[in-house]
Amino acid sequence: MATHIELNRTGDKMPIVGFGCWKVEKDCADTIYNAIKAGYRLIDGAAAYENEVEVGQGIARAIQEGIVKREDLFVVSKLWNTDHHKDHVRPAFDRTLKDMGLDYIDLYLVHFPIPVKHVDPKVQYPGGWENPETKKMEYQRSPLHLCWAEMEKLVDAGLVRNIGISNTNVMMLLDMFSYCRYKPATLQVELHPYLQQNNLVRWVQSQDVAITAYSSFGPASYVQLNEAGKTAKPLLTHETIEQVAKKYSKSPAQVLLRWSVQRNVAVIPKSMNVDRMKANLDLFDWTLEDEDIKTINSLEMGARFNDTLEYGIDLPLFD
Amino acid sequence: MATHIELNRTGDKMPIVGFGCWKVEKDCADTIYNAIKAGYRLIDGAAAYENEVEVGQGIARAIQEGIVKREDLFVVSKLWNTDHHKDHVRPAFDRTLKDMGLDYIDLYLVHFPIPVKHVDPKVQYPGGWENPETKKMEYQRSPLHLCWAEMEKLVDAGLVRNIGISNTNVMMLLDMFSYCRYKPATLQVELHPYLQQNNLVRWVQSQDVAITAYSSFGPASYVQLNEAGKTAKPLLTHETIEQVAKKYSKSPAQVLLRWSVQRNVAVIPKSMNVDRMKANLDLFDWTLEDEDIKTINSLEMGARFNDTLEYGIDLPLFD
Repeated sequence: MATHIELNRTGDKMPIVGFGCWKVEKDCADTIYNAIKAGYRLIDGAAAYENEVEVGQGIARAIQEGIVKREDLFVVSKLWNTDHHKDHVRPAFDRTLKDMGLDYIDLYLVHFPIPVKHVDPKVQYPGGWENPETKKMEYQRSPLHLCWAEMEKLVDAGLVRNIGISNTNVMMLLDMFSYCRYKPATLQVELHPYLQQNNLVRWVQSQDVAITAYSSFGPASYVQLNEAGKTAKPLLTHETIEQVAKKYSKSPAQVLLRWSVQRNVAVIPKSMNVDRMKANLDLFDWTLEDEDIKTINSLEMGARFNDTLEYGIDLPLFD
Repeated sequence: MATHIELNRTGDKMPIVGFGCWKVEKDCADTIYNAIKAGYRLIDGAAAYENEVEVGQGIARAIQEGIVKREDLFVVSKLWNTDHHKDHVRPAFDRTLKDMGLDYIDLYLVHFPIPVKHVDPKVQYPGGWENPETKKMEYQRSPLHLCWAEMEKLVDAGLVRNIGISNTNVMMLLDMFSYCRYKPATLQVELHPYLQQNNLVRWVQSQDVAITAYSSFGPASYVQLNEAGKTAKPLLTHETIEQVAKKYSKSPAQVLLRWSVQRNVAVIPKSMNVDRMKANLDLFDWTLEDEDIKTINSLEMGARFNDTLEYGIDLPLFD
């Protein structure tokens, strides 16, 4: 079982298990430092997570203490919706780079294919979903092909090694393939046993685009965020997952992560606890048998938790 | 209950019930003539249906006999996948216009958001899914925004009154909205009680884009085409639909069509039989009660029959 996925164009080796920075709030710098110390080499951040300064501090400390060199790390960030316009991509990226205290990043993603009216960072940073003045989400006429051209310029400038996209479907990728100079290296989407997206995963991988799963634990990340997360049966305590975990003497979290990496889909779990951080990395010297994969696959229910509609945004992005 | 939907930009009144020309093979000219005589004013064709010459003959005869004037008709055609490139949109449209013997059409749609390698019409017309030489589907780098710009030029040239798109999802429409000069007037997609797409329908209508349902009878059109069509329980003889039909003394076909127009979604049924043609137009002096709508809605099963995957094309377009 490979511990990395080789990205198209650059051949860069993206770790198949990374540390996700979404909702790392308290003690963020320490948490990132601990994650690197625990063995994480991929740090998955985003301007929208509102913690890039602290993430950068955690990285800096780990480098300072000689735990890793910069080139050992694979740092990811994401362009927020309010910065899709060609005049805003580079400034938004520069802010991310400055906040993290880095001079390049390994992978920069378009966070959502939703162009939202620009918000001046002096007024609010990051821009959020709703416009700070009107308190409504307002669109901006920034087509993805123009945004992508700016992403490509970041590669040309040597500031980003790889570019990719998140929360995007096959139809949109097909269109991107027809105008891009640099094909997306990765697609990051919600994936877990309740939302397996088998056709998408298979096809995107066949196009030499690596897939990263977010929310591998399903509803767990959404209990405080939306109704779907609150009402769905948790996966981490689901009897099916617990039974499989028992069979391998692993935790449910490990089973959910292994289920993903075993189909060559990268994962980016978050944990604030160092023991669980380490456990989430321990996915490579054991294998889920086919019958257990099948049992887990039977949990499919097409349940999407990170759905714009679930946040009261009137846009069924995935329909 | 309105018998038309007013289109954005032009205000043109698109009949909410039209006649669908897909798979009208034998006696096509007579069938179209009969449809117009029976009262149809919208004729939904496409280059890919391989019958535009005959459709044009049917239209010409109806006009010649004084049944309708050209301006009473609302003629629809569609640009095939092999003609998305900017150099091919206008020639493809000209061929459609010449084949139908018309000097303008009312609505021209991009048939699929799938750019396929061009096929010289001298070699094969229409281009089909598979390349005639390689016998495989091959993509072409023709992004939708460039194709759409050519569609808009047809409007500027006075050759097409309205332009729209088919087989496209919310994410792609959102991108189109951000670059179009002329917003799509309509979206034509597969819709029936097995695939209701409520979020898509609601949102697209809220954006002032009219929706047309194809395959209102569900699997009926696909029995000879693919496995999904063959194995699904037919809707036209489904006991739930039959029961509702009985209550209103209507046919199951009428119930399925009324179910659609009652949510302001246009329909384009095909029939070769004049009595059924007439019955399919008879949708306006009766109303399905809420409880019956609910009963029909309970048939939802996310079943898509016109799926590229079902034709052995390795592209999960709707995933």
